[in-house]
Amino acid sequence: MKSVKRKVEVCLSPSVFPEFRNDDAIVVVVDILRATSAIITAFIHGAKKIIPVATLDEAKVYKEKGYMVAAERDGIVRDFADFGNSPYNFQKEVIQDKEIVYSTTNGTNCITMARNSYRVLIGGYLNLDAVGDYVKTEAHDLVILCAGWKNKFNLEDTLFAGALAESVLQDDNYFTICDSAHAAIDLWNMARQNIMKYIDKAAQRHRLKEKGLDDVLEYCHTMNVTRIIPVLKENYLTKIDDFTDNDR
Amino acid sequence: MKSVKRKVEVCLSPSVFPEFRNDDAIVVVVDILRATSAIITAFIHGAKKIIPVATLDEAKVYKEKGYMVAAERDGIVRDFADFGNSPYNFQKEVIQDKEIVYSTTNGTNCITMARNSYRVLIGGYLNLDAVGDYVKTEAHDLVILCAGWKNKFNLEDTLFAGALAESVLQDDNYFTICDSAHAAIDLWNMARQNIMKYIDKAAQRHRLKEKGLDDVLEYCHTMNVTRIIPVLKENYLTKIDDFTDNDR
Repeated sequence: MKSVKRKVEVCLSPSVFPEFRNDDAIVVVVDILRATSAIITAFIHGAKKIIPVATLDEAKVYKEKGYMVAAERDGIVRDFADFGNSPYNFQKEVIQDKEIVYSTTNGTNCITMARNSYRVLIGGYLNLDAVGDYVKTEAHDLVILCAGWKNKFNLEDTLFAGALAESVLQDDNYFTICDSAHAAIDLWNMARQNIMKYIDKAAQRHRLKEKGLDDVLEYCHTMNVTRIIPVLKENYLTKIDDFTDNDR
Repeated sequence: MKSVKRKVEVCLSPSVFPEFRNDDAIVVVVDILRATSAIITAFIHGAKKIIPVATLDEAKVYKEKGYMVAAERDGIVRDFADFGNSPYNFQKEVIQDKEIVYSTTNGTNCITMARNSYRVLIGGYLNLDAVGDYVKTEAHDLVILCAGWKNKFNLEDTLFAGALAESVLQDDNYFTICDSAHAAIDLWNMARQNIMKYIDKAAQRHRLKEKGLDDVLEYCHTMNVTRIIPVLKENYLTKIDDFTDNDR
């Protein structure tokens, strides 16, 4: 018998996801630097669909079929791709009404991993409140899946997980007995007053800086720019129709 | 060329350990509730050797050969075993000068997992300072491997990892670029003033309570009871000879 209360869990890295598998749950995938921030931005700027693919080989096949392809590994755009992983690539002129195939080091793999769940949403600071509000409209458990870095824990995704978990847990319909949810919430409350300062110790922040890709850091940590929530349907992402700026 | 500085990393659960594998590192295995606390206690009380085995089947084979066996799963002692996982089982009368075979839900698996490392030590609050001091006597990287709970993150092991990482990083010979080390240290500093209060939200604390096994909670969080450090040699644990109470 299903408990009336809905469970909140935080999965700190994709390598642990098998332990959190719950086909009845809403899974929110988060890869703040930079995949999910880029995907949300793409839909803000009018993308029609994004097809997430886990491997570069799959991305290449789509490219040969004529699709626009965003593909990077370790922050470096792949030769065959049209562009990489910076949210700044996903601008209106380039992507409006387009279907884009997208493969990244960490984020897109998580999306395909979670596809058997009840629903897969794309979360980031850019749509934090919208995701929290939407989750609460459905009577399902919540798993927040942090993309991390090459199967390891990372700080920036964990902080977001803490922010979202805390917000959802304020609703009495939810509970948690998940140690990683508690840790994420505590870290979020330590960081939230000055998130840019806190995130300065994150390894990915330094990786991006070394490659001159850290221009997106502040943008990716900007709160509630949009009410748009990308959602997985079959094998592609689209935006949830009835939950956009009108609901604000 | 090996860097002069030694790297500190925290592996938050065994499922991520392949990403942290570093055969040149000292690996400190931690399972505060209760495996590593029990192992340290066994050596305090004069155990000669502990043979950690990952599976119950292996433990059974040893039992049939006449060994004393400690074996539990989910906190429950196995029928064929002499006793389970509580540090209180490992008392002098029972175990002095004995060789004990030991299999637990989470902890012993980590020990066997790490066996290819330069050195495998057993850590807990009971020997926190001794482990930190010992690590600094050897010019090797440090990986703190949290046993977690069934491949998931847990709070109690992470807090210990933060305490040990922070202490070792005070030495200029060490550095970290590991996000999970930063998170563990921050959580430790949040919890350290009142660790029993903080740990009250840990899931394992409640699991043990439900089974009436939480009598060990405070003991397992007692600092620096001993200078004894269990170390893996071939397939068994013994104590480091020249690093006991005399070095205090």
